[in-house]
Amino acid sequence: MPPPVTIEDPADPRLAPYARMRERDLVGREGRFVVEGEVTLRLLLSGRARFRAESVLLAPERLDGLAGALEACPEPPPVYLAGKAAMSAVTGFPIHRGVLAIGIRGEDPTPAALVPDAPAPALVVGLAGLTNHDNVGALFRNAAAFGADAVLCDAATCDPLYRKAIRVSAGAALTVPFARLPAGQDWLSFAGERDLVPLALSPAGATDLADLPALPRALLLLGTEGPGLPGSLLARARGLRIPMAPGFDSLNVATAGAIALHHLARMRDRLS
Amino acid sequence: MPPPVTIEDPADPRLAPYARMRERDLVGREGRFVVEGEVTLRLLLSGRARFRAESVLLAPERLDGLAGALEACPEPPPVYLAGKAAMSAVTGFPIHRGVLAIGIRGEDPTPAALVPDAPAPALVVGLAGLTNHDNVGALFRNAAAFGADAVLCDAATCDPLYRKAIRVSAGAALTVPFARLPAGQDWLSFAGERDLVPLALSPAGATDLADLPALPRALLLLGTEGPGLPGSLLARARGLRIPMAPGFDSLNVATAGAIALHHLARMRDRLS
Repeated sequence: MPPPVTIEDPADPRLAPYARMRERDLVGREGRFVVEGEVTLRLLLSGRARFRAESVLLAPERLDGLAGALEACPEPPPVYLAGKAAMSAVTGFPIHRGVLAIGIRGEDPTPAALVPDAPAPALVVGLAGLTNHDNVGALFRNAAAFGADAVLCDAATCDPLYRKAIRVSAGAALTVPFARLPAGQDWLSFAGERDLVPLALSPAGATDLADLPALPRALLLLGTEGPGLPGSLLARARGLRIPMAPGFDSLNVATAGAIALHHLARMRDRLS
Repeated sequence: MPPPVTIEDPADPRLAPYARMRERDLVGREGRFVVEGEVTLRLLLSGRARFRAESVLLAPERLDGLAGALEACPEPPPVYLAGKAAMSAVTGFPIHRGVLAIGIRGEDPTPAALVPDAPAPALVVGLAGLTNHDNVGALFRNAAAFGADAVLCDAATCDPLYRKAIRVSAGAALTVPFARLPAGQDWLSFAGERDLVPLALSPAGATDLADLPALPRALLLLGTEGPGLPGSLLARARGLRIPMAPGFDSLNVATAGAIALHHLARMRDRLS
């Protein structure tokens, strides 16, 4: 790897991508994203992520522990070292762990390109209107755990590369392929074009998850916990229900998604 | 209900249980706990919770919407009204929703009392060393969704009546019976005494969840995500594994718990 560069001036232009982190979480970063913490940085450097690091910013005492991962990185990024006080001054909030990196988004794939061609098996997750970063992050973690091929997001769903979503995903947002459904394209026409059976997970779904026949190609659609999936979609997709204790119908959306993905993946015998 | 009392002096002793909320989250409240937000307050007032409200503190504009729930409360608590500025001054942080209450913990039940007597069916969740309030709250939500009889916590597990745990549980921490395992009592001797089959959920578990025979009486043990359950426990309980995609073995503990509870509850045919 290139020799690390110590930078203690928070105004140094090389640190500009790390500046005012929380404000820029809200407005976006023009082709970049932030990774924080050792687990996700290791993933970003490993070559298993779909993205590459533009730079890494470490507190000096973190360098030794990460040197091996930096050495092994196929495309080693520049490494900047700054004390936690300087890191906090740049980012605008207290940095405790001393491990940050900027990733490059690259070109977004098209949704169609992420779905294996029929008749190969395919398991795709569709996120409809999920605006909570914890839920989106958790769903990526569950999609990775159960071997989904891709996650598709509608226009209202928040960015899977938002800082907190990456962290909650335990890095899965960096590895599971995802794409944004184009405006004007609806889920059911997409499912039809790609030969996927659309499944709408909902407490009102007509089919009990356990009664679902094995489906070689499925699109599992998940909506927000309150309003749920739009009625137009529920009416046209196959409604799938997770039975619950009498009087209780409230599971977290990422938890419900995990139960359904576990079942779908098991039917395909993809797990180990 | 008694007529609501307007209190705009943050030093009024009737508001003392609401004071310095975050500091007191850490040190405990001597037999009390805080409920925040409309969903959980409605549950506390409904009679479906295991606890009763000592008092309710509302921003005046929230009274109309909650009047029906207050009227219907079997043991109506005093209702104090204070503007959000006064509420924030008392609690020490910005109160946005304007809905707070103090609950009374009452006597803790013993763990043994919460387990239905053999040979009746029993499904009990055991939390070992879970110190994250989100995970504990989420596990209560999942325990409620899948009809667990009780949740038992070891000494290291955090308080299910911590403010954030109640919120994340969607109120289930107020309804699902729970108790603390006494110091010196270990999980396996407890399971033996109460005639429960101890199941240890772990990525290293020998038995695939799908291969588990129907168990009329089970104690599902869940540990922290990092270190997991202690080796001594894994060696003596039946290890249960959720198969995952090759190369991935990381589910959130509350998510893994939901998948296992769904499976166990389904085998008992308790769901609707």
